[in-house]
Amino acid sequence: MLRSTPLGISNTYASSDPQSPITNSIPASPSELCIKSLVVIPSLTPLLSKMLLTHRLAVFLPVWLFLSEVGAKVPRVAHPGSKQAKYLASKRPPTTTAQVSGSFTGAGWSASAPEVSAPYTNVWQELSNDEAADVIAFLHNQTDLNLTAAADAGSWDNSIIRVEILTPNKTDVLPFVDNNQPEPGRWARAAIWVGATIEPYVIEYQIGPLPISSDSVLTSLDWLTTKGTTYQRNYDADEDLTSEFMYNVSSSVQDIVTDLLNGTASGSDDDDLDIWGIDPLWHPTPDTTVQWVTFWRIPSSIFDGETLMPQGLYFEVNTTGRDPSGWSVIGWLYRDVYYNSTESFRAAWEAGELEKSTLNLEGPWIGSDYRGPTTKVGENSTMWASEKAPPVMVPPSGEDGIRYKVDVDNKYVEWMDFSFYVAFRRDSGVRLFDIRYRGERIVYELGLDEALAHYAGNDPVQSGTAYLDTYYGFGPYAFELLAGYDCPTYATFLNSTFHADEVSTTHPNSICLFENDQGYLIQRHSDDAYVASTKNIAFTVRSASTVGNYDYNFDYTFYLDGTIEIVVRASGYIQSAHYYGNDDYGYHIHSGLSGSMHDHVLTFKADIDILGTSNSFANHTVAPVTASYPWSHGMERSTMKLFRSYLDNEDNAKLFWPGNAHSMFMVVNKDAPNEFGEPRGYRIMPSKGSGMHATIQNSSNLLNSMNFATHALYVTKQKDTEPRASNANNDYDTANPVVDFAAFFDGESLDQEDLVVWFNLGMHHVPHTGDLPNTVFTTAQGSMLILPHNYLLHDPSRDSRQTVRIDYNDSGVQAVHTFGADFSNGLVNLSSVVPDFWAYRGDIDVRKFPYDPQHPYNDTESIV
Amino acid sequence: MLRSTPLGISNTYASSDPQSPITNSIPASPSELCIKSLVVIPSLTPLLSKMLLTHRLAVFLPVWLFLSEVGAKVPRVAHPGSKQAKYLASKRPPTTTAQVSGSFTGAGWSASAPEVSAPYTNVWQELSNDEAADVIAFLHNQTDLNLTAAADAGSWDNSIIRVEILTPNKTDVLPFVDNNQPEPGRWARAAIWVGATIEPYVIEYQIGPLPISSDSVLTSLDWLTTKGTTYQRNYDADEDLTSEFMYNVSSSVQDIVTDLLNGTASGSDDDDLDIWGIDPLWHPTPDTTVQWVTFWRIPSSIFDGETLMPQGLYFEVNTTGRDPSGWSVIGWLYRDVYYNSTESFRAAWEAGELEKSTLNLEGPWIGSDYRGPTTKVGENSTMWASEKAPPVMVPPSGEDGIRYKVDVDNKYVEWMDFSFYVAFRRDSGVRLFDIRYRGERIVYELGLDEALAHYAGNDPVQSGTAYLDTYYGFGPYAFELLAGYDCPTYATFLNSTFHADEVSTTHPNSICLFENDQGYLIQRHSDDAYVASTKNIAFTVRSASTVGNYDYNFDYTFYLDGTIEIVVRASGYIQSAHYYGNDDYGYHIHSGLSGSMHDHVLTFKADIDILGTSNSFANHTVAPVTASYPWSHGMERSTMKLFRSYLDNEDNAKLFWPGNAHSMFMVVNKDAPNEFGEPRGYRIMPSKGSGMHATIQNSSNLLNSMNFATHALYVTKQKDTEPRASNANNDYDTANPVVDFAAFFDGESLDQEDLVVWFNLGMHHVPHTGDLPNTVFTTAQGSMLILPHNYLLHDPSRDSRQTVRIDYNDSGVQAVHTFGADFSNGLVNLSSVVPDFWAYRGDIDVRKFPYDPQHPYNDTESIV
Repeated sequence: MLRSTPLGISNTYASSDPQSPITNSIPASPSELCIKSLVVIPSLTPLLSKMLLTHRLAVFLPVWLFLSEVGAKVPRVAHPGSKQAKYLASKRPPTTTAQVSGSFTGAGWSASAPEVSAPYTNVWQELSNDEAADVIAFLHNQTDLNLTAAADAGSWDNSIIRVEILTPNKTDVLPFVDNNQPEPGRWARAAIWVGATIEPYVIEYQIGPLPISSDSVLTSLDWLTTKGTTYQRNYDADEDLTSEFMYNVSSSVQDIVTDLLNGTASGSDDDDLDIWGIDPLWHPTPDTTVQWVTFWRIPSSIFDGETLMPQGLYFEVNTTGRDPSGWSVIGWLYRDVYYNSTESFRAAWEAGELEKSTLNLEGPWIGSDYRGPTTKVGENSTMWASEKAPPVMVPPSGEDGIRYKVDVDNKYVEWMDFSFYVAFRRDSGVRLFDIRYRGERIVYELGLDEALAHYAGNDPVQSGTAYLDTYYGFGPYAFELLAGYDCPTYATFLNSTFHADEVSTTHPNSICLFENDQGYLIQRHSDDAYVASTKNIAFTVRSASTVGNYDYNFDYTFYLDGTIEIVVRASGYIQSAHYYGNDDYGYHIHSGLSGSMHDHVLTFKADIDILGTSNSFANHTVAPVTASYPWSHGMERSTMKLFRSYLDNEDNAKLFWPGNAHSMFMVVNKDAPNEFGEPRGYRIMPSKGSGMHATIQNSSNLLNSMNFATHALYVTKQKDTEPRASNANNDYDTANPVVDFAAFFDGESLDQEDLVVWFNLGMHHVPHTGDLPNTVFTTAQGSMLILPHNYLLHDPSRDSRQTVRIDYNDSGVQAVHTFGADFSNGLVNLSSVVPDFWAYRGDIDVRKFPYDPQHPYNDTESIV
Repeated sequence: MLRSTPLGISNTYASSDPQSPITNSIPASPSELCIKSLVVIPSLTPLLSKMLLTHRLAVFLPVWLFLSEVGAKVPRVAHPGSKQAKYLASKRPPTTTAQVSGSFTGAGWSASAPEVSAPYTNVWQELSNDEAADVIAFLHNQTDLNLTAAADAGSWDNSIIRVEILTPNKTDVLPFVDNNQPEPGRWARAAIWVGATIEPYVIEYQIGPLPISSDSVLTSLDWLTTKGTTYQRNYDADEDLTSEFMYNVSSSVQDIVTDLLNGTASGSDDDDLDIWGIDPLWHPTPDTTVQWVTFWRIPSSIFDGETLMPQGLYFEVNTTGRDPSGWSVIGWLYRDVYYNSTESFRAAWEAGELEKSTLNLEGPWIGSDYRGPTTKVGENSTMWASEKAPPVMVPPSGEDGIRYKVDVDNKYVEWMDFSFYVAFRRDSGVRLFDIRYRGERIVYELGLDEALAHYAGNDPVQSGTAYLDTYYGFGPYAFELLAGYDCPTYATFLNSTFHADEVSTTHPNSICLFENDQGYLIQRHSDDAYVASTKNIAFTVRSASTVGNYDYNFDYTFYLDGTIEIVVRASGYIQSAHYYGNDDYGYHIHSGLSGSMHDHVLTFKADIDILGTSNSFANHTVAPVTASYPWSHGMERSTMKLFRSYLDNEDNAKLFWPGNAHSMFMVVNKDAPNEFGEPRGYRIMPSKGSGMHATIQNSSNLLNSMNFATHALYVTKQKDTEPRASNANNDYDTANPVVDFAAFFDGESLDQEDLVVWFNLGMHHVPHTGDLPNTVFTTAQGSMLILPHNYLLHDPSRDSRQTVRIDYNDSGVQAVHTFGADFSNGLVNLSSVVPDFWAYRGDIDVRKFPYDPQHPYNDTESIV
């Protein structure tokens, strides 16, 4: 049974007493507790121990761990970056090539939507700055945590990584929202970096209730994990030292690097080359940490296309433990030849055995600027009139014509018959809660849970790269949207906030809300007497996160027929591989470049509720049959039928989309049939991109941390202890993730239970030349529809006045029915749809720290 | 070997001498020729004979063919219609409910695009009215055809069904276009109805060269078939008599019909009920024709929702031969009980054994007008501000800002780096030819080939319905598009023309061309120093065909990255079933109504040419592997690879889309690698709707006429004799189609040959309540992308000036780069984006004939 916590939340892994406040029981050294948990006291963390035992590499202890080494300290590893700052124009340039948009009036492009009062407080809202400050102060008051102020903390200190709202339990929220019960207590969660130990780790706690008072406590968040503990070992705690070590390795063969790569990687600001490698790190044995790294050329222009310039030289280091004197170089790889020591690599070079590869060098090809027909790549192009202003959508009546309402404080939105709350998370960005249609909740929660980008290659860096992007976070990189480009100028823009490193950061205009015409009708019919048409006006919530090289666009779009569409698109720079012997892993796309193949798998949570939380998951499949009928004179006919079934329990609830799209999956309420006896429901159906899942099913990199990506969609019973398919800290130790999605599937009934659907969007991305310089959204997108299925008794778009019927006959039009709709009228000043480019703020105001995995928030330069 | 014809085209089925003019050799009675071909001289038509022998029902001769019958003549079967004409307002009504759009200025909503001269004549252009008239006159001069003027012709006469351009052979066009060879001769094709025989049929000829001169000849079109002959038996020639017979059957049980269905079906104008049934007709033996029909309620309002009102009473008739005295009633079906004679059906009724079913009666529920929150179906709806004019796209600079060019006479279009010719066909509507990108042809031909709508049910009418919609034709039903709704008001509209029943018909404004902003960017990237964005402006060619109850929207959209998207959407009325015992065939969606399940499969031809016609079809599949590497210390890694293969020949060229979308299919030119060694190509990839194929693989209705629908896509070697996957006349005799797509697959090599890709779009449609009154485009759509793949060396959207880069730092924006782009400026009068509703013409001006399968063109009322 689940036991209640102060928050009303429960703990599935009863150990010592994790739901009690630990402010008084935390060991003097947090590491002590966790080392014990990890090694000494298996009874306390049975799941963790089990994972260690089943670690597939646990019995493998190769001799190559004890090979050559290099010692002294050098600067930190710089992840992909650029030197652009020094090349930036320092003032507004009225140059001939950069035309300034002088026509902009500077007013009115961000719509102020009519106000509405949310029916209840947004209980999912991120922590306010004051709340965050209070929580941080409270944490510093917990002397047993032994915290150092983030600004002063080093890798051997304990410090606060981030604080955030602890999403309230659904079972606490629904009584408040639906049954006038008290508002659930507001709690925070905090991720703490524990560095003052030889086995540093990250651990999460819950703090509350808020506001901080004498009743507030710090308690365990272990109940939110499948491992039984939020403790997550960090094997890369001393990144600065690791970086120093790697630069030292590079410096030890500087003559070879200069010869082969025509550059230096010494850790100096003058370096041409950068060094970084695999993510996550490898553990050939649970106690061993190794990583392969490679050299990348640092761009000198403004364009941060470093990921397009891999240099083709790789080395592997053993960085086990926190003492660099124990670290070593394991081997080198060049042109697919492995050298088992720096000495043997040098010997080969000195013997003249190292043929020079084609280097990836900087050039206009990495820039995303306009090129045009006069350039080599634009040859045979005309692009006639591409300079002319293209069609643009305008709001006919300006702000007076806005057809939605917003409660900005509560991030609550009403559009036509939809209403919902917007929340924002450091890990995953925008989430929507309590999506209602015609007053009934249809989706309790909708949002991204994890984003996998799994590469492959014949080189160890590509082979070893499998990003779990919530480790970096979509929230910190959800920068300001460019009005008129990312969103219409007439959109309503909202801000988003997160709290990391004891700093509260607000990205202005990072969420936009807008209506637009979808460019095709939602309904039409004509015959010889009339033509009837209804405009397809939809409402979109959009954000964009630039997680290093890639730019993700997220749309949640609402349609007049009751459908919700979730769209993910990818643009920005690919991460590529040096081209050598890797034709089986991608295309040769530039002189020394392979478009490194990878899978993007973005896992979304859709907690669908149909007329309450007692729901079932139906599969209605269209299939061929042969059948005879009372009227078929004994003949068998080759025809088809509709087969209806339900998922019985979680063990059978990992699903694929059939290739012929002949199965309809839906969440229905069996106990709420419509008046014709059909259960009311919402269907889930892939639209763009067909739905997908990961190619690799048991990745050597991700081990137990990719179980959300093995299938196209999953159904589980909603549990407060399983709020998310992943955890941002999984990446630290993928064999032993904090949340292993596979553990959600434990045979629970799905028959009239509260169901959650988890579905994947993404693409198998084998970049081709058209991905240079940037991948285009047009062909790199996927979307899912959540659409009514026998939910209402008719098509609800009939209730939109944006419908017209024209009656005609041989004599011409006889009547025009416009149903009270207003029509566009008057004059629109088009300068209102040109953005104020000069007002853009980007992420400048919040860029305060260099990259650090423990400070993962707002440095696009620093991550991949 | 293929022999040359006067047209330069070839004949694969050498018989007597089909490519010679037959004007002098045609038999006195055309039926004589064809009966001989069909029965007496198998050596002349080997394929046809083979089909007869393999007809799956050929040995089945059931006793039920010789049962009860009813005699006297009654009027023709009315296919779905309405009585709305008498209810139509006869003049412009300034009523309270119908608000007239008085603000419209009436000017400027159809854009006149800048002119361009097509580089060569549109050789695919439909026949001009004069050409059609000359061809018709020429045909009438062929006395052996014994033609009667269409206006005077009855079912026992011979008459011209339609004349059309005979699409020139690709092998004749390319030398003209590419190598300065003479323009190919222009030829027509004609479909002739041959009624003066006991075995009436349709046959097609070619006529040319045009203009008609003494050199012009009438020759066989048999070379364009797989059957070896265009001869196609029509087993439903005497539709008026059949209708009369059916009404007579109904009248013979009028008391029962009145009792059970509360209406009459006598053939009178006052009837409440209509009678029609299966399509295509059944032939239990090759010489027998039977059909099941049912009763439908005729709407009394303007809304032609007859297909929503099936009444649940069915009867089967034997209408073999042309002598109604030999026709008979075979049986009746009511509430899933079969009665093997009218007498036994009557006896059951008289015995009180016939329980009354729930009838489908007319009501507001079949109307597509605005309903609104005050109605029962709108309850719990608010739709706040739905009356306000929603955002609308405008052309910033009016006609001066148009960014494409059109040669209206040649229907030739240039937009950005694309150019193409538009053609139009009676069977399939819009087709595009010679699509070039940056001066290189990428697609020679792109267009719809066939559209299947296959139903299933426990009743014989739904079970027996499998429409092949090109039988009805998409061209005749491509009515005027409603500016401001179907297309933007600022679109350029083109007309389309077809020639049927000796009448040339032009649908005004039935094709539209427009640019619009897709509502999301095509490219973006941001980092700490800049944000770069490119607008996603695309160009669309759109048409809509209302083929009876369904409205199909067809889009061909061109993108700045070189991608072409083909989109099909369905709206309009579903064809439904009476609800009784058919839960296995659809949902119960209204009181007596089942949403009859069906598959839409729309087959498109994409003749892709990559740098010439020597092309190969590549399959690049991403698949999991375990592999060890020089650097992996002997360990096997679980990872993935890219597997590249080619289709070798047609026998292996019927393909499915994998459920995980992990295979990339593309047409490449192996002999034209790019400078990095990758073959240049265009990929084909499903977007919306995932791609699909028919559920039923060997339909009892369609027999040999659905082989284009069994797989998701197909690849064949281009042959002039295989220009289309189907033939409009296949529906007449589906066991013996004129063109059987399966015959295209005969093992020919696909290695560096001229390839054609045939792909299917559509949906498995199990209508639910949301399909009432009309299906919505939002969720009933499918699309396919044809996208560059290693085709150019970079993303070509970099050559659009609609790109902006903003450089910024901590001090704010430092530079705005707009690359010479103009920005929206000045004032737009929004009344210009409101259509002139009163100028709409619909199809009124061309509605001249009642429906007749031999006159299949412009009567939306008449077909399903």
